[in-house]
Amino acid sequence: LIDDKAEWLQKEQGLAFSIVGIATRSHGMAINAQGLDHAACLATNDLSSLHLGEPLGDIFAFIAQVPAQVILEGTWVNPQTGQPATDYCRAALRAGKHLVTANKGPVAFAHGELTTLAAERGLKFFYESTVMDGAPIHSLRRTALLGAEVQGLRGILNSTTNSILSRMGEGLSFEAALAEMQAAGTAEADPSNDIEGWDAAIKLAILANTMMGADLRPAGVDRTGIRGLSAEDILAAKHAGEVYKLLCEAWRDSSGRVQAKVAPARLSADDPLAHLGGASSGLTIQTDVLGGLSILKTPSSPRSTAYGMFVDTLNILGRQQR
Amino acid sequence: LIDDKAEWLQKEQGLAFSIVGIATRSHGMAINAQGLDHAACLATNDLSSLHLGEPLGDIFAFIAQVPAQVILEGTWVNPQTGQPATDYCRAALRAGKHLVTANKGPVAFAHGELTTLAAERGLKFFYESTVMDGAPIHSLRRTALLGAEVQGLRGILNSTTNSILSRMGEGLSFEAALAEMQAAGTAEADPSNDIEGWDAAIKLAILANTMMGADLRPAGVDRTGIRGLSAEDILAAKHAGEVYKLLCEAWRDSSGRVQAKVAPARLSADDPLAHLGGASSGLTIQTDVLGGLSILKTPSSPRSTAYGMFVDTLNILGRQQR
Repeated sequence: LIDDKAEWLQKEQGLAFSIVGIATRSHGMAINAQGLDHAACLATNDLSSLHLGEPLGDIFAFIAQVPAQVILEGTWVNPQTGQPATDYCRAALRAGKHLVTANKGPVAFAHGELTTLAAERGLKFFYESTVMDGAPIHSLRRTALLGAEVQGLRGILNSTTNSILSRMGEGLSFEAALAEMQAAGTAEADPSNDIEGWDAAIKLAILANTMMGADLRPAGVDRTGIRGLSAEDILAAKHAGEVYKLLCEAWRDSSGRVQAKVAPARLSADDPLAHLGGASSGLTIQTDVLGGLSILKTPSSPRSTAYGMFVDTLNILGRQQR
Repeated sequence: LIDDKAEWLQKEQGLAFSIVGIATRSHGMAINAQGLDHAACLATNDLSSLHLGEPLGDIFAFIAQVPAQVILEGTWVNPQTGQPATDYCRAALRAGKHLVTANKGPVAFAHGELTTLAAERGLKFFYESTVMDGAPIHSLRRTALLGAEVQGLRGILNSTTNSILSRMGEGLSFEAALAEMQAAGTAEADPSNDIEGWDAAIKLAILANTMMGADLRPAGVDRTGIRGLSAEDILAAKHAGEVYKLLCEAWRDSSGRVQAKVAPARLSADDPLAHLGGASSGLTIQTDVLGGLSILKTPSSPRSTAYGMFVDTLNILGRQQR
């Protein structure tokens, strides 16, 4: 994406990105203060062959040494702990780098801490790609919804369960729909993180914390997965003109506390979230000034996740359309 | 809205808005450099009783004399010419004031000129409330979609025609649906601006010009209104699982030129725009990096239009969520 947009960056923003370091789990690490050769990086299986300078120890040594303004983090994460990604994020900010993450863990487990850490150092911590793969949710909150009070959120945020429910609506059993996705590589061999609602809960915690000022962890979300739904349930809803979705909801209770819930729910046909098929996703934001505002996105792709990180980087640098 | 958000402005942004002048068509004009009393303004039928300083001549004298940083423009406009609003906007920028408009005319007829005029003077010209009543469309473009190439637009942008078509889907005739809205005061006595697609065309021209770099005027939009649709057409679509909408579309033709069209179209049930009932509105933005992104909004209100102008003002001042 950086290569694709190089001409636009130069022409419209007078800007060129230089990749001065890459660290991976199984393909080595490389730093080159003059900028790594993109094609050479993509062609090699071992980035260490491109490394210039002092030998690198572990990833923390890389973070300390890489001469970058912005670190883009997209490592593996344990969804129960947010680690090791959260420690990488802390290290990046402590090393004086702006931070972009596409990783749900650090935002769900340490949003407040990382935001404070960044602010204390005059740095930015942006994370557009954590929810809805790069669709503008967090940037909306920062600028377009400034001063609006978010009263509630409703979202369809997990593509695996939404795809399974879509196929069940066409007559397949849960097992057949899941097996089909596993065969296509779009569901994991162990799908429990999706099926049991953990992925949806972690995304909902992020949204509740960032948009409604909550301080929730994924385990604090009232969570029911889709295993209990039968083909008969799905068809009964269909006959009533409704559709089952794994719905994510956050709202303020009468004491003002933010509550959050992930559970199968029947949506009526006039709900903008009801028609999101397959791997599409969507969020309805209820505010005091705009009523209900819905953001819907066609199925995600690695390119849209990359774009979220790209635009976060531009926004961190204070760039806007001229 | 400024009063409602005064506490938030002070606490979160360290900011207080002072209304130093108001000009109206039939309730007079007032300037007070110390700030007008909001309650007194709302209580009077003649603002000139609150005016302090030199006598004011016409609106251009007001624009020249008002000691404001930002002028918010929301005057009456002739949809065929964009006047007199466009001249007010020129005068505001020439007087060195940032400009917010909720008025479609100046943006549809003079977007390029006013943007250049503003840029030459280091001023901003924002207009969030011109389309979808304050829903974040233009602010998305400025920051959240930075570097994304907008390849096409599809929208439902006129609430009068959408409400009529919704009611016709419930069995009413065109005439009965229109009469119902006129009785409720939600359609105008002369509804031709809406029914013949002019209001939709002006909004589409704004979006094509600002998001796709076109240079269209409303008359350059291929335009068909909804008068030709019969109750039978609507019901035939319904039986086929489709729904008639007054669809606004912009796309690039094979020579790269932006084409724009407003016409009734049958939308399939899986189209996110198909389920926008009554006075709801929506826009699908097709980009090279995010696929299809849809923004949908529940029915508009004066409060959401006011919010668009409020958030434009904050964004002009460079404010973001802390």
